[in-house]
Amino acid sequence: MKSELMDMLESRKEEMIEIRRHLHENPELSFEEENTANYIADFYKGKDVELERNVGNGYGIIVTIKGGKPGKTIGLRADFDALPITEEADVPFKSNNDGVMHACAHDGHTAYMLVLADCLIQLKDQIAGTIKVIHQHAEELPPGGAKSIVESGVLDDLDHVFGTHLLPMGPAGVVGYHSGFSFNGRTYFKLKIQGKGGHGSSPHTANDSIVAGSHFVTAIQTIVSRRLNPLNSGVVTVGSFDGKGTFNVIKDAIELEGDIRYPDENVQNIIEEQFKRIVKGIELEFDVTCDLTYTADYPPLYNDPEATAKVAEWLQSTDDKDIKEVKEFPRLAPSEDFAYYLEKIPGSFFYIACTPKGVEDPYFNHHPKFDIDEDALLVAAKSVGQVACSYFDVE
Amino acid sequence: MKSELMDMLESRKEEMIEIRRHLHENPELSFEEENTANYIADFYKGKDVELERNVGNGYGIIVTIKGGKPGKTIGLRADFDALPITEEADVPFKSNNDGVMHACAHDGHTAYMLVLADCLIQLKDQIAGTIKVIHQHAEELPPGGAKSIVESGVLDDLDHVFGTHLLPMGPAGVVGYHSGFSFNGRTYFKLKIQGKGGHGSSPHTANDSIVAGSHFVTAIQTIVSRRLNPLNSGVVTVGSFDGKGTFNVIKDAIELEGDIRYPDENVQNIIEEQFKRIVKGIELEFDVTCDLTYTADYPPLYNDPEATAKVAEWLQSTDDKDIKEVKEFPRLAPSEDFAYYLEKIPGSFFYIACTPKGVEDPYFNHHPKFDIDEDALLVAAKSVGQVACSYFDVE
Amino acid sequence: MKSELMDMLESRKEEMIEIRRHLHENPELSFEEENTANYIADFYKGKDVELERNVGNGYGIIVTIKGGKPGKTIGLRADFDALPITEEADVPFKSNNDGVMHACAHDGHTAYMLVLADCLIQLKDQIAGTIKVIHQHAEELPPGGAKSIVESGVLDDLDHVFGTHLLPMGPAGVVGYHSGFSFNGRTYFKLKIQGKGGHGSSPHTANDSIVAGSHFVTAIQTIVSRRLNPLNSGVVTVGSFDGKGTFNVIKDAIELEGDIRYPDENVQNIIEEQFKRIVKGIELEFDVTCDLTYTADYPPLYNDPEATAKVAEWLQSTDDKDIKEVKEFPRLAPSEDFAYYLEKIPGSFFYIACTPKGVEDPYFNHHPKFDIDEDALLVAAKSVGQVACSYFDVE
Amino acid sequence: MKSELMDMLESRKEEMIEIRRHLHENPELSFEEENTANYIADFYKGKDVELERNVGNGYGIIVTIKGGKPGKTIGLRADFDALPITEEADVPFKSNNDGVMHACAHDGHTAYMLVLADCLIQLKDQIAGTIKVIHQHAEELPPGGAKSIVESGVLDDLDHVFGTHLLPMGPAGVVGYHSGFSFNGRTYFKLKIQGKGGHGSSPHTANDSIVAGSHFVTAIQTIVSRRLNPLNSGVVTVGSFDGKGTFNVIKDAIELEGDIRYPDENVQNIIEEQFKRIVKGIELEFDVTCDLTYTADYPPLYNDPEATAKVAEWLQSTDDKDIKEVKEFPRLAPSEDFAYYLEKIPGSFFYIACTPKGVEDPYFNHHPKFDIDEDALLVAAKSVGQVACSYFDVE
Repeated sequence: MKSELMDMLESRKEEMIEIRRHLHENPELSFEEENTANYIADFYKGKDVELERNVGNGYGIIVTIKGGKPGKTIGLRADFDALPITEEADVPFKSNNDGVMHACAHDGHTAYMLVLADCLIQLKDQIAGTIKVIHQHAEELPPGGAKSIVESGVLDDLDHVFGTHLLPMGPAGVVGYHSGFSFNGRTYFKLKIQGKGGHGSSPHTANDSIVAGSHFVTAIQTIVSRRLNPLNSGVVTVGSFDGKGTFNVIKDAIELEGDIRYPDENVQNIIEEQFKRIVKGIELEFDVTCDLTYTADYPPLYNDPEATAKVAEWLQSTDDKDIKEVKEFPRLAPSEDFAYYLEKIPGSFFYIACTPKGVEDPYFNHHPKFDIDEDALLVAAKSVGQVACSYFDVE
Repeated sequence: MKSELMDMLESRKEEMIEIRRHLHENPELSFEEENTANYIADFYKGKDVELERNVGNGYGIIVTIKGGKPGKTIGLRADFDALPITEEADVPFKSNNDGVMHACAHDGHTAYMLVLADCLIQLKDQIAGTIKVIHQHAEELPPGGAKSIVESGVLDDLDHVFGTHLLPMGPAGVVGYHSGFSFNGRTYFKLKIQGKGGHGSSPHTANDSIVAGSHFVTAIQTIVSRRLNPLNSGVVTVGSFDGKGTFNVIKDAIELEGDIRYPDENVQNIIEEQFKRIVKGIELEFDVTCDLTYTADYPPLYNDPEATAKVAEWLQSTDDKDIKEVKEFPRLAPSEDFAYYLEKIPGSFFYIACTPKGVEDPYFNHHPKFDIDEDALLVAAKSVGQVACSYFDVE
Repeated sequence: MKSELMDMLESRKEEMIEIRRHLHENPELSFEEENTANYIADFYKGKDVELERNVGNGYGIIVTIKGGKPGKTIGLRADFDALPITEEADVPFKSNNDGVMHACAHDGHTAYMLVLADCLIQLKDQIAGTIKVIHQHAEELPPGGAKSIVESGVLDDLDHVFGTHLLPMGPAGVVGYHSGFSFNGRTYFKLKIQGKGGHGSSPHTANDSIVAGSHFVTAIQTIVSRRLNPLNSGVVTVGSFDGKGTFNVIKDAIELEGDIRYPDENVQNIIEEQFKRIVKGIELEFDVTCDLTYTADYPPLYNDPEATAKVAEWLQSTDDKDIKEVKEFPRLAPSEDFAYYLEKIPGSFFYIACTPKGVEDPYFNHHPKFDIDEDALLVAAKSVGQVACSYFDVE
Repeated sequence: MKSELMDMLESRKEEMIEIRRHLHENPELSFEEENTANYIADFYKGKDVELERNVGNGYGIIVTIKGGKPGKTIGLRADFDALPITEEADVPFKSNNDGVMHACAHDGHTAYMLVLADCLIQLKDQIAGTIKVIHQHAEELPPGGAKSIVESGVLDDLDHVFGTHLLPMGPAGVVGYHSGFSFNGRTYFKLKIQGKGGHGSSPHTANDSIVAGSHFVTAIQTIVSRRLNPLNSGVVTVGSFDGKGTFNVIKDAIELEGDIRYPDENVQNIIEEQFKRIVKGIELEFDVTCDLTYTADYPPLYNDPEATAKVAEWLQSTDDKDIKEVKEFPRLAPSEDFAYYLEKIPGSFFYIACTPKGVEDPYFNHHPKFDIDEDALLVAAKSVGQVACSYFDVE
């Protein structure tokens, strides 16, 4: 079946590209992907599968492909939401939705997955087990779609879960893997520092919240510089210091917002402890009142080492002409809500290189000029297809 | 003439109060005092004086009272603009102009001065010299009115200049003086710090302007704490830290605005040198670009010691029943554009206490609940009248 | 008697200079002034006075001159200790005691006081009251001598107390006074910050006390810059940051020592509250343990306004040719343990100008090149003599 | 030959332990290892090798073992200096040299290497190539011995170089490897900050070097927190803040010393640029003069990926009962002057686990209680022996 699948995918390469371009022209923001979900559902119409819509907290779709014989169950995930970015890429199939763009390649994820799913449906009698295709909404916007899909229970019967991401980290044909912690976890924080206003000429009658806030920003630098293992570090960013006021009035209160990243839960615990300690310290030090919101949104993504080793082995041992190189990728700084699947279900999230041909220094995901080499769609489909075949041990 | 003047003033105390209440009900913002200026001009209609309108950069009025004999020329100043404050004082003659309030007692200054001027006009034959009454616009809003009036040249012939301020620093009947530097000078600054934006998870690809700004705020604290003589200090306030952004995006640029106060030019020079040095240091330290606006608006107010000693002596030696106590007041932290007159012309700016009767802890000028004891109007009129008589040596 | 006293003093001007030079050549450190005390005691041998030695916590001497008639009792104080400074002044009577120097003019204080006391003894029958000359040890080294002398009770019967200080703030002949708070109070602090040591390459295994200490130093700048009234400010100095260690070992603990100055008790209270608050804040912020010693040693010196006004009046009204000008001096930043006398007894501590002739920019007290115009000794003796005569109302 | 070598090593296990204990009892500091070098030289007496002494800048010894046939040349390095640490380990063969201790296992390195070298000498006819045993002095004290040995030219003919380190990171039998950058590079810095002294009560007359230094320490935290890639970070440690002074004197100058670590040259470049930029910024900001010494001592250690893969493969494929597990180790934070060999010659530095039996949480190298499981000596000898045999392809 494996070579049959590979042949089928090769023959439908153009279709993948067409689907991707259609989605690219019609991007929808997280939690608002109504048309995209309809498009996906339409694609499956008349096919021999179970399809469940509106799964989780949005437009999520679960497609269940039951194999010809009983066996294990796996999930294959592709996300389909877009970003609030105004496209600047010079492509003929530019976004028709002003200010919204498929700048993270979810269009490509969905395109290859639809074609792959169709092929697997056709070949399902040869599979001893079940495949659940997870068309996930809202990956880009916390709380994201993955968490709610996991909590809905529809994946409770999964034995393993797999997914991929298109990344411009090499030419089409390269597949990457990373074992263990692979994407950072993320925490959002908001901190209001309340002092007391007053006349600019008389600081002693007031309590300057800008001075307290500046000391806070300075102090939290030491979390990364002194509290974290330099071989396994994290990030504490204050992205917003809202202290706009009048030049000659001492500012009574400010509000900070920021973003914390950590490779694993241990680092998250250290940062949280130190961060909250510094908040309390600043309260005392400057006699201000602090009001803190501190919420983890996406956990660190942990690729099961065994499953990742299998993926690497399976893909390295294929001699498919489109999968040219399979290699370890580094840990990545961003966050991914695929992490929620992996908290519950062993599996692996791996990478499909997609640097446009002839480009040395490609724009990365989320850039308004982000673009992909569409040859990578077939690589993605074949790689995930290989993983599925190898998992169910069908040759 | 002196006792005649005192008697005349006493008899017109109610009129001062009426004028003050009329002005209080009809406050106008700095540079927009059209009706107030008309009211003042109308007051002088038919009186034997020269009146010049629209002096300087606004509605300023100069009233020249020529004495019966030749002699020196003095200026007496009263300002007439109001503040962008919504009145909260519980008085029957509350502001009719929403959001505008005579919260700095300029209504009182103008009220007593009009009546005093009228009396002086009636007695002018006894005066060997000339009195210029300066009805000044726009004291509250830099660049203020005083500077432009001085620059207009209409005061070039002044030998001395005097003015008073109503302050709730004692009961009506108390008059204060302070020799030398008496009000702080003020500088406005705006500082844009330009770094480079980036993704919250990847600080090394960006240059965080919020971190640079926080270090700047922390560093400039040392100007006051380590660079100024503690016996003659100043203030450096950052009133605005405009760094609002998105929590997970490193902020590319921020803008600070602030207020610097100094008792004298020497302190101003030290602060300016250190401030600009720190700006340059931060540029290097954090590889950011700084764009600084740094403008002195009002200079420190310097009361001529000789003139001030004379004022104190003249008022202390009177046995007028309304001028109950004449004493030294401390230096004051706010700024006053009367300083511009004193830069060119020797003189003294002194204080008329006006704490409302029965109030222990009065609201200070600029507070929405600011109020005065209207008995102080007569004290003001008599004190300035005494100064004028003594100056021209008429008994 | 007054003119008789003035004449006597004039005739013994050379003796004052000789005594001063002798003391200058033989300086002794605070609490070690054995020879100086013997010298003083010897001076009084055979004179008709009571002399009490070893008063207070050192070599203090109280000389009681009983007048011919009963009356009030005043104290006149002169201190006699020297400083741990190696003299660099180019004078023929340079210090013979290496590393010790009369760099604060206590040699002069003692010299003029001995001669003045001798004259007063001779004239005492004309005095209706008692004079206690306080030869005080250990002014320079906290806890100082004054506090213990006051606590000993020997001054309990004093009605008023007076003293002077030689200061190079004008030519010999100028006498200064200042009413109210005149010298700063001082607090000594020591702060140990205990973190945890570790290998320089692994900050996460340690807790860096140098980083915590640096944030502390930065944070306490805000006490002066934001907590104190700029019109009545203070000083917080960290004079010692003892964090010497090994370059590649994270320092486990550091020790700071410093010096706090304040014009009055209100400012001292604000500083103490904020300082201790910041210490607690740093403990929390950096998870360190702080051990704080915080001890006021000399209080702010408060000159009784009534007594000071009297001193000014008495000296201004004299037409003595050596007392050329009597004027207000500014508040001074250093500290003086004369403050302890004034806490219990009304009085005034005033200033004798002593800038060496022909010097524009004199070295101040405590400088290794400090020097005085010895003509000021006679001015001091005459001024204090005038005060005593006027106090007892003898002409 | 390989199994013959393994048998020989096994039979001489006790000898290795004896040599190690002898060296442990007689440790010598870096650059002072005269007796140790004599001991090593004596060991080779009468053996059929070339021995060169005093190589490089100290007591380094190169032993050349020429094989029976021509071929490639490899270096095998063992270091032999000890540390200035007072031993606290409870062993019967405790250091006889007070304050000096083999706390980094160089005693073990030398012990196994001597026995291994002797065996290789006996079997050399079977080797097609040359082995140079590098007995290196002074690894612990910059500039170290390695750099000078490389510069001496004696290793110019090496094709590859190998070395090992005993580390308590697993039980005896575990061997670790790491490809690419494996130990951090290190820079030593010394920074003198020169301000201006003054009286504690008068900061405006001085320029406080402690305040400038504290801001510097605070500012350089941002190098790690904001300038480095969190996935490839470094360390900036200020280990010494020498600012001891007098509490009431403003400190004129301070001296900082510290330690900077970086995984690769790119990170070193970023840190150096930012560090020097901040030094210049502080000079401007606080008007101080900075005198900076900034010297890289050991570069990052880069294990050649090809050679490391070979070592891993060779050791993984052996079925020797003493080499129980061969696995990847993490990157390490400390520094090693083996890095200098690897700058010139491809090779690999790998790890021999030596956690004492029954110990869960062993003392790490450089701890006064550091100890090893002496079974690891045989593992080291066998591992390096296997590498040599595999390299020359002798079975």
